[in-house]
Amino acid sequence: MSRPIPTRIYLTEEEMPKNWYNLRADMKNKPDPILHPGTLKPVTASDMEPIFCKELVRQELDDTTRLVPIPEMIQDFYLSYRPAALVRAYYLEKALGTPAEIYYKFEGSNTSGSHKLNSAGPQAFFAKEEGLTSLTTETGAGQWGTAMAMACGFYGLGLTVYMVKVSAEQKPYRKAVMETYGASVISSPSDTTESGKKILQGNPGTGGSLGCAISEAVERAVKTDKCRYVLGSVLSYVLLHQSIIGQEAKAAMDKYGIKPDIIIGCAGGGSNLGGLIAPFMGERLAGKSSARFIAVEPASCPSFTRGRYLYDFGDTAMTTPLIRMQTLGNGFIPSPNHAGGLRYHGMSPILSKLFKDGYLEARAESQTDVLAAATTFMKAEGILPAPESSHAIKAAIDEALACKQSGEKKVILFGLSGTGYFDLAAYMAYNANTLSDQIPTDADLEKGFATVPNIPQNA
Amino acid sequence: MSRPIPTRIYLTEEEMPKNWYNLRADMKNKPDPILHPGTLKPVTASDMEPIFCKELVRQELDDTTRLVPIPEMIQDFYLSYRPAALVRAYYLEKALGTPAEIYYKFEGSNTSGSHKLNSAGPQAFFAKEEGLTSLTTETGAGQWGTAMAMACGFYGLGLTVYMVKVSAEQKPYRKAVMETYGASVISSPSDTTESGKKILQGNPGTGGSLGCAISEAVERAVKTDKCRYVLGSVLSYVLLHQSIIGQEAKAAMDKYGIKPDIIIGCAGGGSNLGGLIAPFMGERLAGKSSARFIAVEPASCPSFTRGRYLYDFGDTAMTTPLIRMQTLGNGFIPSPNHAGGLRYHGMSPILSKLFKDGYLEARAESQTDVLAAATTFMKAEGILPAPESSHAIKAAIDEALACKQSGEKKVILFGLSGTGYFDLAAYMAYNANTLSDQIPTDADLEKGFATVPNIPQNA
Repeated sequence: MSRPIPTRIYLTEEEMPKNWYNLRADMKNKPDPILHPGTLKPVTASDMEPIFCKELVRQELDDTTRLVPIPEMIQDFYLSYRPAALVRAYYLEKALGTPAEIYYKFEGSNTSGSHKLNSAGPQAFFAKEEGLTSLTTETGAGQWGTAMAMACGFYGLGLTVYMVKVSAEQKPYRKAVMETYGASVISSPSDTTESGKKILQGNPGTGGSLGCAISEAVERAVKTDKCRYVLGSVLSYVLLHQSIIGQEAKAAMDKYGIKPDIIIGCAGGGSNLGGLIAPFMGERLAGKSSARFIAVEPASCPSFTRGRYLYDFGDTAMTTPLIRMQTLGNGFIPSPNHAGGLRYHGMSPILSKLFKDGYLEARAESQTDVLAAATTFMKAEGILPAPESSHAIKAAIDEALACKQSGEKKVILFGLSGTGYFDLAAYMAYNANTLSDQIPTDADLEKGFATVPNIPQNA
Repeated sequence: MSRPIPTRIYLTEEEMPKNWYNLRADMKNKPDPILHPGTLKPVTASDMEPIFCKELVRQELDDTTRLVPIPEMIQDFYLSYRPAALVRAYYLEKALGTPAEIYYKFEGSNTSGSHKLNSAGPQAFFAKEEGLTSLTTETGAGQWGTAMAMACGFYGLGLTVYMVKVSAEQKPYRKAVMETYGASVISSPSDTTESGKKILQGNPGTGGSLGCAISEAVERAVKTDKCRYVLGSVLSYVLLHQSIIGQEAKAAMDKYGIKPDIIIGCAGGGSNLGGLIAPFMGERLAGKSSARFIAVEPASCPSFTRGRYLYDFGDTAMTTPLIRMQTLGNGFIPSPNHAGGLRYHGMSPILSKLFKDGYLEARAESQTDVLAAATTFMKAEGILPAPESSHAIKAAIDEALACKQSGEKKVILFGLSGTGYFDLAAYMAYNANTLSDQIPTDADLEKGFATVPNIPQNA
């Protein structure tokens, strides 16, 4: 048997994208510049280079080059796990009884289990090219740390990962994967940095936080010779690398003449969603498409739907440059929900601007509803999705059921950014009916905004 | 960039095999018949049908039909996760500096994490066709139980999995996946069967064993209306289903004119190795190829290299029919090594016969050497392999290094039967240098043979 449109569309190596797509180049209203927190002036390359690789800084500040050639050596890295399949969800369509066509771009088939590897590879490569010998980063849920461990293993670079202590304890296997790839994993807070020592002194029993792990990773990078810090989301250079997702998805759809009406992704810092929608949004901005774009976030951390468009710090310690974005305020402490990759107070400045300007819709979903959608999906399609990715599944199912009501045969594309092999505690809680939805109150949100810097917000 | 032979070869849906290949039809010396333990006469369909589905019994007893059409509904199931990629190991070749070409057929990209789904799907389908409403099985490491849970979820059948108690406790996430797919998972021994109760009475604190879990699953199947028992390895019908691996691999190689010189697989009960080699061995038996075939087993459970070709029971409780096979004796208790899927005292009768007749080579490898090979592989190719599959990796690397010595450009194909996401305890032990090799002494082996039935072995 075979189907008019294959269940899985794989590009050939010849058909694979040779360029990343820089969506900012096609935005009439560009994201606001990142500001230096002291001078409140736009950051310069020399402000950023003590922390980040030069080429990444250049990419971050370049909002005019449309197509950025992917270096041959990174194309070589991508071939180690790409192309990723564009899957026609025939089984899910049948299970829902919908006339809609559902497609998903599956980014979880590599060992890191998510799309994070798409930017980890380039970041390691550019560091190597610059003559650096090691990198530092932080990880919470562990996807990003695993991806960086794989990339540094591939390019022969040292890597120190500060892993939020409570995560390291809850997920020893994540730690084991990173270590097997040669990374050094340190539970944060630790006594290997001044910032870690300070936190431990004040609060010896703390389980750590992403904010604290970032501080330790940055401190170690700036204090170590030939070492820089790498970050896996929010920044525009990360979205540039992640555009490989959308570039591949669009090439696969174009090959079969498929035009998506609705494009959906989950959103934490925005790297997966921003990467998936990039070329499709480019067409929309150019007036060549009327597709709808939907960001899905957890109701427990609703930066789009209950956040504000403000200049804010990227970290809770208020040490980073100021980024204008949809934010819940750097003081917002997300409840410990299982979609660890979506627990961030801010959002990509590119996506924030598109949301502000009305190009991107957003909705927030509760954990329980998200896991219910995940269970429907995994029974039909066979793939165990990450709780993060399952936010996109929830919205895709809702849109497909709306088509069933209206009888419309829409084409829905969503990003399946990762697998849930390391997130089974969430499924166990869902099966046992002990999952709680942890939706913040308005008072919780006000606390989060309390430490947003008081600067002119129309800069 | 692109490569003369793609890094991953995916068959199109049109190119996918439409038939399973029954290697027995092309064997001049066929495997010896399975005997009834009471009469010592070849088992008949009516002996087996109280326990197994009718169609599976028919397949088990049919050693003459060469090509068995894959029913459309099973082709539909296969499309939910196939084709599996044939991967050219460019990165591993480079890391080893070998002139050999290395390929692997990767069967671990589905959620069950291994090739087991290839037979779980057909077994559930035939049960459904026969009008059964539920199935029972046992699982040790969990791959088979997960595959059956997925297949029963797909076809809407009930499933009870007896999971070896110590495995259920060590791998709660494996259990969670099965339950999320709707299976009922019972730690064995349990008080849900007479055999379980008896064992618990004699040994209340036991962690269970595969032999005990089999007894419980079979008992429950025969005592339940419209219910049968399913098994994931050893039997010839399982190897028939698994021939999809070899059929796909051969079609992919033929497409690019690639002829393997050496074909390697790990061997526990033999389902993965038997499936991979089937069509290639068919050519060898027909004198159309001189390829070498290598089975790799753990040194801790060496059924080929230190076992004997005897009629023996398939289980430790000595309740099954008698199978002529390479066996360590039903009394052999394998040490608790990490490659749980390879801990079985016997071996597929098809593979045993091929080994006996000199068509199949075998070697045994220690855990430490296997995990070292796995680590080399995962750093180069990015995929975290199951400890079971890593036995094949070890032999493939050795053969590639021999080519480096001799300067020969051989073509090596191996089966990468699964991923190691649920086996990270093994990697942690390897990283910590606490892995032990657990090689049985000759005295250990003698104990295993003590309970092999004393019947004419030239039947």
